[in-house]
Amino acid sequence: MRIALGLQYNGAPFSGWQSQQHRNTVQDVLERALTSFATCPLKTVAAGRTDAGVHALGQVVHFDTEVQRPMFAWVRGVNAFLPDSIAVQWAKQVPAEFHARFSAHERTYYYMLYTHAIRSPLLAGRAGWVHQAELDLSAMRAAARILLGEHDFSAFRSSECQAKSPCKHLYALDIEARGHFIHFRFRANAFLHHMVRNIMGCLIEIGRSRQSVDWLKIVLAARERRHAAPTFMADGLYLAQIGYPLALSVPAPELASQSWGEVWSHSS
Amino acid sequence: MRIALGLQYNGAPFSGWQSQQHRNTVQDVLERALTSFATCPLKTVAAGRTDAGVHALGQVVHFDTEVQRPMFAWVRGVNAFLPDSIAVQWAKQVPAEFHARFSAHERTYYYMLYTHAIRSPLLAGRAGWVHQAELDLSAMRAAARILLGEHDFSAFRSSECQAKSPCKHLYALDIEARGHFIHFRFRANAFLHHMVRNIMGCLIEIGRSRQSVDWLKIVLAARERRHAAPTFMADGLYLAQIGYPLALSVPAPELASQSWGEVWSHSS
Repeated sequence: MRIALGLQYNGAPFSGWQSQQHRNTVQDVLERALTSFATCPLKTVAAGRTDAGVHALGQVVHFDTEVQRPMFAWVRGVNAFLPDSIAVQWAKQVPAEFHARFSAHERTYYYMLYTHAIRSPLLAGRAGWVHQAELDLSAMRAAARILLGEHDFSAFRSSECQAKSPCKHLYALDIEARGHFIHFRFRANAFLHHMVRNIMGCLIEIGRSRQSVDWLKIVLAARERRHAAPTFMADGLYLAQIGYPLALSVPAPELASQSWGEVWSHSS
Repeated sequence: MRIALGLQYNGAPFSGWQSQQHRNTVQDVLERALTSFATCPLKTVAAGRTDAGVHALGQVVHFDTEVQRPMFAWVRGVNAFLPDSIAVQWAKQVPAEFHARFSAHERTYYYMLYTHAIRSPLLAGRAGWVHQAELDLSAMRAAARILLGEHDFSAFRSSECQAKSPCKHLYALDIEARGHFIHFRFRANAFLHHMVRNIMGCLIEIGRSRQSVDWLKIVLAARERRHAAPTFMADGLYLAQIGYPLALSVPAPELASQSWGEVWSHSS
């Protein structure tokens, strides 16, 4: 029997998703909890192998097991074995041909940027930060439009990237300002390693008017990492949602449930 | 010269505000940073001595020094010596008769409650949590009205409380629901030790319909701690704002800057 799980985690305490010897990774902690709950070893495959410090709102994993438990027990029972920083949100039996990574045709990442002269202790590890209170939004949006569509994104690819092809299709890159925050939403068929953080580095350079919109055209066309800006901090990066064929009926993450903090805003 | 600082902190890693031997407290960490920056020992007095795990958006402290620095240096310079979990937001020279604690005539605390069947890793240590998705808001609001005004709040006072009098004046207790969150705002001349968390425990019992609204009248009138509900978790408690006489021109905290997470909500 193949089971898919929806997963949220705070990436700050972890060395990323992928299992590593002598490292504290989300996969290792999850597999230990699943093994404790099922009382037999379980191995998982994730849709997105998030880096150190990167959060997940809608990570999807699958595993195979002969253990029979009600689906809600794969949520509540496993959560009882997980630390505060990880929680299973849903569990669902899926067809044997479902694969958390290879069945996915679309990924959405969010980047949350805090723009304020003074850093916020309550946002540390949860949002990126630039001390310029005003970034040039229209320049950043114009730059984002350059990246839409199918491109060779080698300029934004880390040297450790294992993807077969540097060509990805960026469907959307929305930029929305709310108070002291700028919210970036990236939607693509897939992403290269560090692609979102490298694009963020470039967009922020443009937002600060240190680079022009046209500079991004040159960076993209050059297809070499050294032309782009430094990789921006992981703190504000969230794997938000994985898109699967509708026929698989994989539950969508409950993103609105993350809208905490909103409740503070009316008091100021 | 007397200087006041506005302070934000994430209370999760700390054993509360107040200096203690061999404990990691906000006061100790702040005083070490001030001493490093000023290169001479500095002692602080805070408006509110927050407990372990309690956060601050608008804590105010004062200290006396002969060291001459521009006011912005007391912000940026001191922040360079502070960990990610604490940040000075503003610094201001105040009259010698200003006292962070005794000049304050009003305190505002927020309590952020997450109501969802499944806990959220990104809210751990930042919001209280009950797994009931629906609480009876009108019953909680009716109960809150019972507490408004001047009362002997002994029923909500911890045995460690050092306040001279158990009588406090609760000016407001607003309850607002937003999605999976309930936001509580307490405004009073002053609070007893654990008073907000003990009231939260009672309001949640009423919201879950385990107790009636009238039960809270009995608890308040009994003036004994044992009649009230258990102390609710510190995770969602924020010292939001300290009220001083307007003539002192103490800056108000920038609470809207904390409205992160809000930016996620439009995507769901």
